[in-house]
Amino acid sequence: MIIQLKPDVTKEKALELATQIGAIHLIGNGRQTLVTSSKIKDINGVLDGLVEQTFVFDNDLQLAHASYKPEKRSAQIGSVTLGGNTQHTMMIAGPCSVESEEQIEASAKLMKSLGVKALRGGCFKPRTSPYSFQGLGLEGLKLLAKMREKYDLAIVTEVRDATHVDAVIKYADVVQIGAKAMYDHGVLRACGQAKKTVLLKRGFGTTLQEFVQAAEFVLSGGNEQVILCERGIRTFETQTRFTLDLCGVAFLKEKTNLPVVLDPSHAMGYAYGVPDITRACVAMGIDGLIIEVHPNPKIAKSDAAQQLNHDEFRLLHQTLPPIATAVGKIMV
Amino acid sequence: MIIQLKPDVTKEKALELATQIGAIHLIGNGRQTLVTSSKIKDINGVLDGLVEQTFVFDNDLQLAHASYKPEKRSAQIGSVTLGGNTQHTMMIAGPCSVESEEQIEASAKLMKSLGVKALRGGCFKPRTSPYSFQGLGLEGLKLLAKMREKYDLAIVTEVRDATHVDAVIKYADVVQIGAKAMYDHGVLRACGQAKKTVLLKRGFGTTLQEFVQAAEFVLSGGNEQVILCERGIRTFETQTRFTLDLCGVAFLKEKTNLPVVLDPSHAMGYAYGVPDITRACVAMGIDGLIIEVHPNPKIAKSDAAQQLNHDEFRLLHQTLPPIATAVGKIMV
Amino acid sequence: MIIQLKPDVTKEKALELATQIGAIHLIGNGRQTLVTSSKIKDINGVLDGLVEQTFVFDNDLQLAHASYKPEKRSAQIGSVTLGGNTQHTMMIAGPCSVESEEQIEASAKLMKSLGVKALRGGCFKPRTSPYSFQGLGLEGLKLLAKMREKYDLAIVTEVRDATHVDAVIKYADVVQIGAKAMYDHGVLRACGQAKKTVLLKRGFGTTLQEFVQAAEFVLSGGNEQVILCERGIRTFETQTRFTLDLCGVAFLKEKTNLPVVLDPSHAMGYAYGVPDITRACVAMGIDGLIIEVHPNPKIAKSDAAQQLNHDEFRLLHQTLPPIATAVGKIMV
Amino acid sequence: MIIQLKPDVTKEKALELATQIGAIHLIGNGRQTLVTSSKIKDINGVLDGLVEQTFVFDNDLQLAHASYKPEKRSAQIGSVTLGGNTQHTMMIAGPCSVESEEQIEASAKLMKSLGVKALRGGCFKPRTSPYSFQGLGLEGLKLLAKMREKYDLAIVTEVRDATHVDAVIKYADVVQIGAKAMYDHGVLRACGQAKKTVLLKRGFGTTLQEFVQAAEFVLSGGNEQVILCERGIRTFETQTRFTLDLCGVAFLKEKTNLPVVLDPSHAMGYAYGVPDITRACVAMGIDGLIIEVHPNPKIAKSDAAQQLNHDEFRLLHQTLPPIATAVGKIMV
Repeated sequence: MIIQLKPDVTKEKALELATQIGAIHLIGNGRQTLVTSSKIKDINGVLDGLVEQTFVFDNDLQLAHASYKPEKRSAQIGSVTLGGNTQHTMMIAGPCSVESEEQIEASAKLMKSLGVKALRGGCFKPRTSPYSFQGLGLEGLKLLAKMREKYDLAIVTEVRDATHVDAVIKYADVVQIGAKAMYDHGVLRACGQAKKTVLLKRGFGTTLQEFVQAAEFVLSGGNEQVILCERGIRTFETQTRFTLDLCGVAFLKEKTNLPVVLDPSHAMGYAYGVPDITRACVAMGIDGLIIEVHPNPKIAKSDAAQQLNHDEFRLLHQTLPPIATAVGKIMV
Repeated sequence: MIIQLKPDVTKEKALELATQIGAIHLIGNGRQTLVTSSKIKDINGVLDGLVEQTFVFDNDLQLAHASYKPEKRSAQIGSVTLGGNTQHTMMIAGPCSVESEEQIEASAKLMKSLGVKALRGGCFKPRTSPYSFQGLGLEGLKLLAKMREKYDLAIVTEVRDATHVDAVIKYADVVQIGAKAMYDHGVLRACGQAKKTVLLKRGFGTTLQEFVQAAEFVLSGGNEQVILCERGIRTFETQTRFTLDLCGVAFLKEKTNLPVVLDPSHAMGYAYGVPDITRACVAMGIDGLIIEVHPNPKIAKSDAAQQLNHDEFRLLHQTLPPIATAVGKIMV
Repeated sequence: MIIQLKPDVTKEKALELATQIGAIHLIGNGRQTLVTSSKIKDINGVLDGLVEQTFVFDNDLQLAHASYKPEKRSAQIGSVTLGGNTQHTMMIAGPCSVESEEQIEASAKLMKSLGVKALRGGCFKPRTSPYSFQGLGLEGLKLLAKMREKYDLAIVTEVRDATHVDAVIKYADVVQIGAKAMYDHGVLRACGQAKKTVLLKRGFGTTLQEFVQAAEFVLSGGNEQVILCERGIRTFETQTRFTLDLCGVAFLKEKTNLPVVLDPSHAMGYAYGVPDITRACVAMGIDGLIIEVHPNPKIAKSDAAQQLNHDEFRLLHQTLPPIATAVGKIMV
Repeated sequence: MIIQLKPDVTKEKALELATQIGAIHLIGNGRQTLVTSSKIKDINGVLDGLVEQTFVFDNDLQLAHASYKPEKRSAQIGSVTLGGNTQHTMMIAGPCSVESEEQIEASAKLMKSLGVKALRGGCFKPRTSPYSFQGLGLEGLKLLAKMREKYDLAIVTEVRDATHVDAVIKYADVVQIGAKAMYDHGVLRACGQAKKTVLLKRGFGTTLQEFVQAAEFVLSGGNEQVILCERGIRTFETQTRFTLDLCGVAFLKEKTNLPVVLDPSHAMGYAYGVPDITRACVAMGIDGLIIEVHPNPKIAKSDAAQQLNHDEFRLLHQTLPPIATAVGKIMV
């Protein structure tokens, strides 16, 4: 339940009430606001005469619920706005991992030349094996920051766990919370207090309900710039790496107020299928795409099979604007 | 393994060899052809001097394998050709079930007015409960045949099990094998000997490998007009009815030579998501769509939640051609 | 809803009412009984004064619902009763496929020597590939019948589709409906009218709800001897063939009145795990087991990896009685 | 690949080699040992003459591989040893969350009275909603420590993320890494350097391969006391909370050298099924159980539906020793 307090309720009073009823306090829709999973009957007495409006939902989607705030929320990625009243479908691309300055600069140049405005690249890799390449860490973050300066690109990079969340928040324009970290309270709470846009990926075993609840951690922490990213769920089918859940995307577009970005690369797991899937994603009318591109996928230190090479990406990139136009969107 | 015999091997000799090595005999690529799961070393002696060419695959995709016959197979639906060297994306639409003459005629008129050339409607419904509406059976087939005559529409209808496969083959232009019947050897073998196009739906618990193997039953029976239809798989996500597997579609387009049709209605399970998903499907560059449309979904006797009403379908229908154009396809 | 009519309602009247309200008629709990998915308010007028008792459930589990008939139903397998007020856990074992007289006789002798009273063996194999061994068909059924005569074993064998359901009903003591055939109305309806016990396997993509609904087809056809068989569902895990759903078994034991048999062989898919899993099944307190055993698994024509050899089966078999005893059951 | 260096290779030399070939260094089987995902041909030159033995596996199971160290590893829980050459099946029980001193003391007393030697209770709850009860945190840890002192019970409690891993390591006897934290490198690495036994739960969307790889993080960090805990995976079935994967347990027992503990409570999600499932687990011959028990489940602040009350637990507890005995195990 979301409780908007009357205009004359002070912040101090609101904080006191929050403690009393076990609610989270925030400013929402311009009012002192409390959010709680309690039922109204359990708490009404305390709040008599102080409530302007309540929103009651039958699940723990609250701030993200389309019935609470029907206009879509917006999020800033560098100079581009996603969601809100824009019709943008934004391209975010780059290698799976930052591997070297030469490699990430090749990617940055490609993006610049194509007019792509956001560069992705992982520095803290959530590998399942301790014996694989684990990423360049802080050194990688610094290389990304250098690319931002040099090529005027927004930087999207992933936080793996709470031990380095502050470093990622400091260096990135967009903090990506990966599929394996999306239940991590340490990360979610830190992002809730950050001033950076958060790109929250759905876990591969995560229900849509849980996915949006993870966004609620960030929203209820006070950071309203949260983007949902569907990247494929794990099913019985193993010919492809994961199964991109576009039915789930239709649900998110209908039931929540959050912008949605799709990641065809991780879903498919094989470069051959990425162009078709990407075009399908654009036709869904979504807010953005995140695509893995590598100067030489064969020697990539992670996710080699699914990264497009530069020529494949160029070809794909030019096929997208007419589809976007056909569904009332603009590729940026 | 597929074994193409030399031109001078007679049909009689080929049949004899088939029995000897436990292979299926058919005419393939204009030659006496044997197909077997045996390894070449086990059978070579018998065939010495008789073999022109062999195709060896590491799985039991054989006649459907893109490496056996790289050009896409074609299938006829009324006057329209799917696949082959066409660029058609064909619309097939109509109610889940044929419920009455009035209802199916309303659907037929709508399709006619929009230029849609194929009408779907179920007569033998594979319901999971014995206490639900089971379909009109033969009476329904006759109503569909009447609509074909009156409105010049190709008829697509489902066979539920082997007890009525002959009736469906007789009345339909396209025999749809549903998700629950796709392992049914009785149905598959009857369709393999039929002269009608077969629309084979993927079971919701069926791997891509098994799905194509079911098509192999029909192909190896001598019927080359088989269309694969993805309609959503069952996953842990229950906010939508099923999960449409577009990554799987990318696999099927790459690895097989069969035309692919998609069914967004069953995948999504809710009308609100069908338009977005349908547009995504068209952008995949597929060969056709099968959409559930009902004059009054609220009173439909099956699948009420997922059927579009006539206005919703009209709106959706007109948004598709520009997307098809953008990916080099033509909506028919 | 199940409607038990008053004692003075005749069969003719009951049949008439069934037609009027779209219900299935049967004799249940010694009364003329109607079963329908309609709500009581829709039909009440017609039945005024004729109803003794109604059972209303919030799903389409009806005759199988533990609240309708709380005592467990029983089923006969040869001379052994499963379920009801017995405490039997029955062993059913034998090869995946009947391959030859020599092979099936070796199995029959083993079972006889160990006191196992039911022999399984498939004759119509529901293979996913048309190029694999498809079973001996009618010839296999005759070999099984011969073993029954010679070794006094009950015969459990599978029906694949409706084209040969009558033959299987004729020859078998227990008609097994396999995981791929369990939605087959042709098979389910034929079994509903048969006088033979039906062993219904859960499809690998089938929910518990749908599984019990398939049993409702048989029960509402008039055949009350239905056994549910869990044999593993398909999940994202591929190191084992399927995932045996013992949580689902706990649900079936609690919510339905049907006996439950488990198939560890298909679930595991590898002989090494079958003994441990089988012991776990016995400790669940279930009504029976169905285990694949082959004189020489390495040369088996189907499911070679998962069949136990004779020594492995003997060893396993002797470990089961103490576990059964520990949970108040008797191995038979 | 695991590389055991010759006895005369010093630790300094081994560390130098590790850096050179990108391997992890540890003492394994009493030798300077290197572990790497590289192939032997890539690194052979560097190591010429220094290698005693290599273990090459076709996956990234290495230290946990049964072929590397065939005897089962052991782990200490208070005064009890799990695994190794013991035949123990250890009971670990207690409430989902520590809620108050009164509540946790009631649980502690029950365990003491039944001879159960380990008490579980969560203090940092990984809830999916920010609006639910999040646990007592450090205060809870202190209450658990008090129970250890007072009732001589080993304490098992969960770490949620890296922000408080040090506190949990300090207070607990066994650090439980929950299903949602098991990919958390911050947690895994901290546990790898801890001197406490680690109970690693399988994520509900986690493959067996990834599960054991997470254990490799701890093992390769130098902590050899790792217990694997299967607690149900997420499948399409929703009548039960999760699906306990006993086929997976058979795999883990066969292919790894780690002790295995099972959690029937989370898998089933409903108290009614927990006793049957628990008995099945014991019959698998596993090393331990973790069961949720609450003085009054109805008012529990988390997982209310699945916790047994004290009477239910007492009844269950006394049925387990005969099953353990039947499979050659001893309940402790």
